[in-house]
Amino acid sequence: MRVITLTTDFGTADGYVGVMKGVMLSIAPEARLVDLSHEIPPQDVRRAAFVLYTAVPFFPPDTVHLAVVDPGVGTDRRAIAVRTPQGFFVGPDNGLFTYVLAEVGEWRAVELRVSAYRLPQVSGTFHGRDIFAPAAAYLARGVPLDRLGPPVTDPVLLPVPRLEVGEGRLEGEVLHIDHFGNVVTSVGRLRWEGDGLALDAAFRRAAPPLRFAAADAVVEVGGEAIQGVRRTYGEVAVGERLALVGSTGFLEIAVRQGSAARALGVRPGDPITVRLR
Amino acid sequence: MRVITLTTDFGTADGYVGVMKGVMLSIAPEARLVDLSHEIPPQDVRRAAFVLYTAVPFFPPDTVHLAVVDPGVGTDRRAIAVRTPQGFFVGPDNGLFTYVLAEVGEWRAVELRVSAYRLPQVSGTFHGRDIFAPAAAYLARGVPLDRLGPPVTDPVLLPVPRLEVGEGRLEGEVLHIDHFGNVVTSVGRLRWEGDGLALDAAFRRAAPPLRFAAADAVVEVGGEAIQGVRRTYGEVAVGERLALVGSTGFLEIAVRQGSAARALGVRPGDPITVRLR
Amino acid sequence: MRVITLTTDFGTADGYVGVMKGVMLSIAPEARLVDLSHEIPPQDVRRAAFVLYTAVPFFPPDTVHLAVVDPGVGTDRRAIAVRTPQGFFVGPDNGLFTYVLAEVGEWRAVELRVSAYRLPQVSGTFHGRDIFAPAAAYLARGVPLDRLGPPVTDPVLLPVPRLEVGEGRLEGEVLHIDHFGNVVTSVGRLRWEGDGLALDAAFRRAAPPLRFAAADAVVEVGGEAIQGVRRTYGEVAVGERLALVGSTGFLEIAVRQGSAARALGVRPGDPITVRLR
Repeated sequence: MRVITLTTDFGTADGYVGVMKGVMLSIAPEARLVDLSHEIPPQDVRRAAFVLYTAVPFFPPDTVHLAVVDPGVGTDRRAIAVRTPQGFFVGPDNGLFTYVLAEVGEWRAVELRVSAYRLPQVSGTFHGRDIFAPAAAYLARGVPLDRLGPPVTDPVLLPVPRLEVGEGRLEGEVLHIDHFGNVVTSVGRLRWEGDGLALDAAFRRAAPPLRFAAADAVVEVGGEAIQGVRRTYGEVAVGERLALVGSTGFLEIAVRQGSAARALGVRPGDPITVRLR
Repeated sequence: MRVITLTTDFGTADGYVGVMKGVMLSIAPEARLVDLSHEIPPQDVRRAAFVLYTAVPFFPPDTVHLAVVDPGVGTDRRAIAVRTPQGFFVGPDNGLFTYVLAEVGEWRAVELRVSAYRLPQVSGTFHGRDIFAPAAAYLARGVPLDRLGPPVTDPVLLPVPRLEVGEGRLEGEVLHIDHFGNVVTSVGRLRWEGDGLALDAAFRRAAPPLRFAAADAVVEVGGEAIQGVRRTYGEVAVGERLALVGSTGFLEIAVRQGSAARALGVRPGDPITVRLR
Repeated sequence: MRVITLTTDFGTADGYVGVMKGVMLSIAPEARLVDLSHEIPPQDVRRAAFVLYTAVPFFPPDTVHLAVVDPGVGTDRRAIAVRTPQGFFVGPDNGLFTYVLAEVGEWRAVELRVSAYRLPQVSGTFHGRDIFAPAAAYLARGVPLDRLGPPVTDPVLLPVPRLEVGEGRLEGEVLHIDHFGNVVTSVGRLRWEGDGLALDAAFRRAAPPLRFAAADAVVEVGGEAIQGVRRTYGEVAVGERLALVGSTGFLEIAVRQGSAARALGVRPGDPITVRLR
């Protein structure tokens, strides 16, 4: 039986997530349920899109990823399900799957309109329970995608994170701040080649092949300049700042055993520049 | 194998919830465990009762619902298990199951006194681990209710949420504030009939049949008056207040993509009036 | 299939925990996953060690306990797995398993160096995903411990919590503050014998056999003296302080239906004295 992951901005206090699980286990009693995050900031679609993007490759390829960050519930935004080589995706059509879809390249989507795959009564405010959870559970049970509704060829896609390759420099943005205060940026994906770093075009962006010496790069962020890109925290003293390649291949700014976000005072959307020598 | 849900005020930092799961998986290795909420405010029995009430109908009808919000642990309050058409309920006898029992009408309860269905050593402070988790696990394994202890015919029942039907108006109270700041009230359950709303008597309350025009109603709460009851958030502009029928059928006050609780400054227990025209 | 528990300082907002679960379910699709805590304060190895210590005895004895609180990730700290009569333990070699190992006495450890039991690419910053989760999953699948790497005979061990038995008194320390504000101390394990308390040597400490009258003991903590050790909260009025034997056998200071930590202003590491009469 398939795995179903859950990503929402519901928090875990109210029982909303539990209710969706009750719906799914009523339809697919053997499904394995895994929480990715329920602490997406309310209505922060881009944040959820990035969490999905980083987590999805580590799940079995027939996993169903249910994501409900849904500022447009109760408007005419569509409800969709998408099949990709990295699994199924179910949620509102508001860009939640942008980064995954950009990465996988090929996919097929449908609009969730067949009432047999919804709860009998659909509320105006909780489509996670009434539309998305049932769809995810039926997909986990093996119902073919096409049965859930008519094709969608133009799902909403957000701009992918900004990264510009300029003369001797990379210009990107802060993507998010994690639980430890690490500052994750759009500069990636980076891959080590000896002592150098190669830039692979994330999100299937057109980008010139690029390789630079990690030790010579200077990272400018939050009004400071950090020399060199490291492999790991252990290369600097406790409390010191460093730039390194994060676990998903994006450039991160960290403070060893501390919070870079607090030290630098940066926020998502702030600019970051890598000067290459 | 049956589903077991968990509802507590334990938080998730200390491992208390994990310990209960260890106990349950030792007894019922195949049980499916689903968290409803572990963020019930400490000792807030009414809050837990409402979370259970809203979630229970969406689980398979043989689910075991374990709830441990237990200000009376270590007093002579009883430990009980209850069988209903909506599943089993296990927890302290302090009113946790009030709303569910009021709704289902028929049930049978026992006091958890048979030591074979407890841990060998029962502490004075953690009956969730020592008494309730084992009982839930044995029920999930199919042990009949009656084996767990002698009948209880007078479980503690709290008053159900206040709702008075007056001349041209409904008087209720704020039940709780959810994660998004939505204000959930006791006015319900409401059901759409065309452009009108019918009031069904929640909790098997005696109430006159009532139907009113949604657009004409005026909701007074927190010193403000909100015109009309909407079907969904999309009917007002971002940042605007609205009254609508929440996903469980109770009247809610919301701010589209914002927090009504913050905007109105209301708290659980505050009065709400719906003026009918 | 075995249970795998997870204990980390990752929080639950970023999806890091979900990613580890994806890795484990890819390797061991039938494993049962149970969260102990993901709210260990960042890098607080001792806190995680205590959570494990209190939870482990309540899980099936072939459970795999995965713990990732890893301030040394990216240094040359070892990655280890340990087999004990209370289950398997997987994590960084930094003392996380100190309390469990002290209690069980016998164990066998290996260093996680065999690349077949890691992800193909190991990052410099997220060994939870790349090394520890795969090792835990392979152990849950039944791979013998010795296959994961060479023996380790000298794992890092922290000092066990301080407890000194003096003339007519016990001197210990505050171990931690739980979600309710209960103050858990190192004085234990205590066991009731009639109206007296017997001190069993926790962590296999050498300690003289000791028995004292519970009612006569005086607990000094945070500048206050509390008379007697109680069995349960119900023995004092709501809002009053009390000392009692906590659910794990350690002396705790509590306020009935309140927060002792707030009332007393104590913190982990603060001294506590029990005067015996």
